[in-house]
Amino acid sequence: MSQTGRDKRQGAVKQITSHSNPIVKEIKGLVAQRKHRSQSGLFVAEGLKLATDAIEAGWDVRYLALGPEARENPVAQKTAATAKARGALILEVSTAVMSAMTRKDNPQMVVGVYGQRILTAKDIDASASILWVALDRVRDPGNLGTIIRTVDAIGGSGVMLVGDCTDPFAVETVRATMGSLFHVPLARMSKEEFKSLAGKWPGTVAATHLKGSVDYRTPDYADPVLLVMGNEQKGLEDDMAAACPTLIRIPQAGQADSLNLAVATGVALYEIRRKHLEL
Amino acid sequence: MSQTGRDKRQGAVKQITSHSNPIVKEIKGLVAQRKHRSQSGLFVAEGLKLATDAIEAGWDVRYLALGPEARENPVAQKTAATAKARGALILEVSTAVMSAMTRKDNPQMVVGVYGQRILTAKDIDASASILWVALDRVRDPGNLGTIIRTVDAIGGSGVMLVGDCTDPFAVETVRATMGSLFHVPLARMSKEEFKSLAGKWPGTVAATHLKGSVDYRTPDYADPVLLVMGNEQKGLEDDMAAACPTLIRIPQAGQADSLNLAVATGVALYEIRRKHLEL
Repeated sequence: MSQTGRDKRQGAVKQITSHSNPIVKEIKGLVAQRKHRSQSGLFVAEGLKLATDAIEAGWDVRYLALGPEARENPVAQKTAATAKARGALILEVSTAVMSAMTRKDNPQMVVGVYGQRILTAKDIDASASILWVALDRVRDPGNLGTIIRTVDAIGGSGVMLVGDCTDPFAVETVRATMGSLFHVPLARMSKEEFKSLAGKWPGTVAATHLKGSVDYRTPDYADPVLLVMGNEQKGLEDDMAAACPTLIRIPQAGQADSLNLAVATGVALYEIRRKHLEL
Repeated sequence: MSQTGRDKRQGAVKQITSHSNPIVKEIKGLVAQRKHRSQSGLFVAEGLKLATDAIEAGWDVRYLALGPEARENPVAQKTAATAKARGALILEVSTAVMSAMTRKDNPQMVVGVYGQRILTAKDIDASASILWVALDRVRDPGNLGTIIRTVDAIGGSGVMLVGDCTDPFAVETVRATMGSLFHVPLARMSKEEFKSLAGKWPGTVAATHLKGSVDYRTPDYADPVLLVMGNEQKGLEDDMAAACPTLIRIPQAGQADSLNLAVATGVALYEIRRKHLEL
């Protein structure tokens, strides 16, 4: 019952009824703590839709936990069979164990554990890109997930996480992406790496900024676009703004800075999309 | 210590150290349960900024609870003095009591209890309006709060809640509005009331819909605009869509329906704003 070694998990199915099973504990740790996710390079995504998204997009599935309902659902069965064929360990668990793992009263019928994928600054090929969004110290998991989802919707190239950002592999972030996490490349980098990248960027580097003098509808947004968004509370740091040749502003009727970060990003992306892409 | 009667609360200050104080229990109930909010007509908003917003906008303040930090903060003191002059009961509480009331480990230094304000369909004067957003069965508190915030940012007239919506006075919704709750009129109505209102609406009634054949950038959006958005999972009900003469579509690169509701609303609002308003 406690065997979690890689050598034993190839194509296997395992029944788990005990809350103290080490895999249950491992998944609980991945749900609860960034530290566990970082150390293992794994993360948890809830739901059958995300499992099918992950598998279609070719992500590494470590575990796929199926509740009682999933074992009578043809789509879940097919997904589990594919995951198993690719080496995942399929866990057949009780609803109580699923609740314990995900800390939810009404858990999803499928919970997957996947290998993280994240690029570095060096991996980004600007000339082969359409549009990247760079987020400076984004803090809210819902905002990050929603922005990843919007970048997917407009057919963007990816999302750069600059400096100390919230974990893209946290359960709340993954949930807010609605599966787009598995389709949108992410890159993590320091502020210095970002500034170096922005300095060499072949297209428009545009940042929303309270001091932005240019209405967001004005620029031509030359290909490839790099859209830079600041932190929810503090906006963009001055040296980050200095690295961005075009500072744009989204006009607002009331007090300054009253748009939610994900909404502001969506509004800017659809404007860029209008100018720039065939959508 | 247990005196909560209205007659005793005029302009008073009260020290509370006991978790079992009836006002503490009342506030806990307002935080935790919609039932308590509906029955009392009250709601809780956390934070000094929201307290100053509420007072500036002339909302009824029932209680203003100040933690130890707030009692040394000049803005909080001034806000409390204004609230007290208007009849609020000022509660001086320990951090532990503040935590217990709000169910948070790191509570805000100010927590206010306010009287709800919500209009009905009959209160809406379309001819005196610029733009309303109508939400059909919105479920997510963060989405609702963010949409209220965006309507504030574009200078809209208000938000209609149609059918079984999430509670606009839930703590999470109020938090997501970032104070815009106190500036944006809300109206609650049945689907039938909405359809009647939409039928008589003097300007453009536009709903986003998967079957929408018109790109959202195409309509003229004649004044006043009524923008209608469907439920997060299910979209707009067929009979609701039938009540909306203009069905619009926000183009997306990937699979259908991949925008978050608040983002889609923001993108549509900024497009309407572009066409229609001087911003």
